[in-house]
Amino acid sequence: MEHAKPLPTYLVHRYHGWKATTWAENSAWYRRLAAEGQRPRAMVISCCDSRVHVTSIFGADQGEFFIHRNIASLVPPHNPDGEHHGTSAAVEYAVTTLKVAHMIVVGHSYCGGVQGCHDMCTGQAPALEEKTSFVGRWMDILRPGFERVKDLPEAERLRALEKEAVLVSLENLMTFPWLRTAVEAGEMTLHGLWNDIGEGGLEQYDPGSGKFVPI
Amino acid sequence: MEHAKPLPTYLVHRYHGWKATTWAENSAWYRRLAAEGQRPRAMVISCCDSRVHVTSIFGADQGEFFIHRNIASLVPPHNPDGEHHGTSAAVEYAVTTLKVAHMIVVGHSYCGGVQGCHDMCTGQAPALEEKTSFVGRWMDILRPGFERVKDLPEAERLRALEKEAVLVSLENLMTFPWLRTAVEAGEMTLHGLWNDIGEGGLEQYDPGSGKFVPI
Amino acid sequence: MEHAKPLPTYLVHRYHGWKATTWAENSAWYRRLAAEGQRPRAMVISCCDSRVHVTSIFGADQGEFFIHRNIASLVPPHNPDGEHHGTSAAVEYAVTTLKVAHMIVVGHSYCGGVQGCHDMCTGQAPALEEKTSFVGRWMDILRPGFERVKDLPEAERLRALEKEAVLVSLENLMTFPWLRTAVEAGEMTLHGLWNDIGEGGLEQYDPGSGKFVPI
Amino acid sequence: MEHAKPLPTYLVHRYHGWKATTWAENSAWYRRLAAEGQRPRAMVISCCDSRVHVTSIFGADQGEFFIHRNIASLVPPHNPDGEHHGTSAAVEYAVTTLKVAHMIVVGHSYCGGVQGCHDMCTGQAPALEEKTSFVGRWMDILRPGFERVKDLPEAERLRALEKEAVLVSLENLMTFPWLRTAVEAGEMTLHGLWNDIGEGGLEQYDPGSGKFVPI
Repeated sequence: MEHAKPLPTYLVHRYHGWKATTWAENSAWYRRLAAEGQRPRAMVISCCDSRVHVTSIFGADQGEFFIHRNIASLVPPHNPDGEHHGTSAAVEYAVTTLKVAHMIVVGHSYCGGVQGCHDMCTGQAPALEEKTSFVGRWMDILRPGFERVKDLPEAERLRALEKEAVLVSLENLMTFPWLRTAVEAGEMTLHGLWNDIGEGGLEQYDPGSGKFVPI
Repeated sequence: MEHAKPLPTYLVHRYHGWKATTWAENSAWYRRLAAEGQRPRAMVISCCDSRVHVTSIFGADQGEFFIHRNIASLVPPHNPDGEHHGTSAAVEYAVTTLKVAHMIVVGHSYCGGVQGCHDMCTGQAPALEEKTSFVGRWMDILRPGFERVKDLPEAERLRALEKEAVLVSLENLMTFPWLRTAVEAGEMTLHGLWNDIGEGGLEQYDPGSGKFVPI
Repeated sequence: MEHAKPLPTYLVHRYHGWKATTWAENSAWYRRLAAEGQRPRAMVISCCDSRVHVTSIFGADQGEFFIHRNIASLVPPHNPDGEHHGTSAAVEYAVTTLKVAHMIVVGHSYCGGVQGCHDMCTGQAPALEEKTSFVGRWMDILRPGFERVKDLPEAERLRALEKEAVLVSLENLMTFPWLRTAVEAGEMTLHGLWNDIGEGGLEQYDPGSGKFVPI
Repeated sequence: MEHAKPLPTYLVHRYHGWKATTWAENSAWYRRLAAEGQRPRAMVISCCDSRVHVTSIFGADQGEFFIHRNIASLVPPHNPDGEHHGTSAAVEYAVTTLKVAHMIVVGHSYCGGVQGCHDMCTGQAPALEEKTSFVGRWMDILRPGFERVKDLPEAERLRALEKEAVLVSLENLMTFPWLRTAVEAGEMTLHGLWNDIGEGGLEQYDPGSGKFVPI
């Protein structure tokens, strides 16, 4: 791997600062976590977006959340075709090995992936329709969600689609047989959240009203 | 989505605490990030493991890192077959849309995914060899790495395989044509790290020696 | 005290969040409680176990319960020998100074202390029999309870012993003369509870049947 | 135990409410904690006072803190005389069995136990000097702390004594050989806090300045 380069100095400095402070002050706990393994209470599926930090929002300690981050927090439907499925693998590990008690999907405002899906579905982004576009093919997962919001006024459509990303993922999660079994046995609960990154808002899906409501 | 449940109360309380402090103190920046979009300097590919927090290790601010987390921080080879590829989509978005300056792959000690790959490749985990095992099929990505460490003494093999996961990912990254172009044009640099979660250690791959060395 | 260290950062953040929300919203009441003193209605004697939160189970407000927590919720017999008796001091303060109306002892399932007592009394834990074992000497309080359950089938014995811990404590409470006086004068009532931590069950001792019955 | 009475109805109602909501929403996690045992990161030694709720202040989840509560958060010195020592037993269990990473002692303002110690040491509370006073004999533990503050102006003395209670406990903790070993090996850290219950303040002991400073 001849292309690897040294880490930028500012990150080296920050790491040394962290080692001398945060690590030093918590070393006993970090060592125990290393020796005894993790036992996270929840899996969180969040977006790669640099503006969404669920550990900060929830004051999470090392060891609390098993976190998968991908574009738009999407989960594809169950498809055991023998190919590489990173999201499905993460979900499988959390449910069947770690046996997490909660599966939390977190969408957010101004999501670039959702915007791309919207543009693609409205014919404004032909490049995303190419077979070779990984982003486009990934956002295909959200197409059923687009169908449900396409008739909304344009001003509301994008935000609605961000929330549909959460719902489509929750629906797809239920297509995994061992996950459905865990949910139906009361061993795991599903949660759908949407984060307003500018205003620090947090809404959760309420099946009673069929809406996202502020928590 | 009738299965969604309310968020556990302790997380609701912690969120409200975060909103009243961290968000309130940083609202101007969060609003700008929302209005103007993200402009992260680096993409980080890290593990879902609850014990690895790169934002903590690098003191990362909101907006600094575009973060993808999957099992064992793996990147599959370029394969534009029109299927859903979450990792490839995240990498594509970071390189072609966000134009990040650094691509950082972070492996770690006691990785459950790497352990699974090891057990599978040594015949000790038949369940992971099933076509229906998402974790097994995902860890297939690391098989070329296993081939390179299989003759090591058992005591060294697992740790070596954790580091191979980083190298295999860096190698696979270079199979993406637009990423190779960016690297060769000097527009992006690759970095391979390995984190000792118990001791808070951090090593980086050094192409000169062909080894991971402490930073 | 040169060994004191700074509090882990995640707790500092959570505290600031609490201060900005829970405290801010309740400051008038907290200030009155500070200025006028506490006036709790009940004393609760519960276990140190991290899985038992009586304030949560009973929706208890600041100021409602005077809470003593020790291993296995045990109360030793009255023994005014001039030595340090932390539990007896807490009971004395609650009864003679605070004049609480209820004294509630709460046992629970999977209690490590009760398990230790069981193992010690059946000869399986010689370390706990050492004079220097504080846990062993503390669990000696429960030996009369073990005598009452020792002939039960092994499958029932541990659970029965958890409940005996509550009864032994209630019996020992009645050996404190000022407490007996209060009970006999109708100024205070005793209550024995057992909490099933996994199932969220709560049983109370019923003197009529001599059994714990679900509430 | 013929004296046990039924639980007051308002607590029965609250319990059923908790069971139907908090327990129901968290049952998967509570069942796992029951099945797999606790693994708390920290032990907290706090006061019985009804106005001090550390789980609220720190947003603690079920399973996070092993909590001992006694009058004035005191720890007696190591004294393996074969008698019942509830506080020492709790500390022993936390350090040697649970292997907690942090030992946090929390004092607070307007502590009735500390007030009693002050009055006793200044000759204003003869009843507390009786051999039969459990509160008096328990507060004897704080006498070395009183010696250090007795020459302060009266207006400052009580508050200083509340903080001395924390320091005396930390000092006494270090007299337990296995605890000292754990601290010196870097396997556990000690922390001293003082909570202003009216103002919601939190200070921690800083060995550098020898003072409690706001966090």
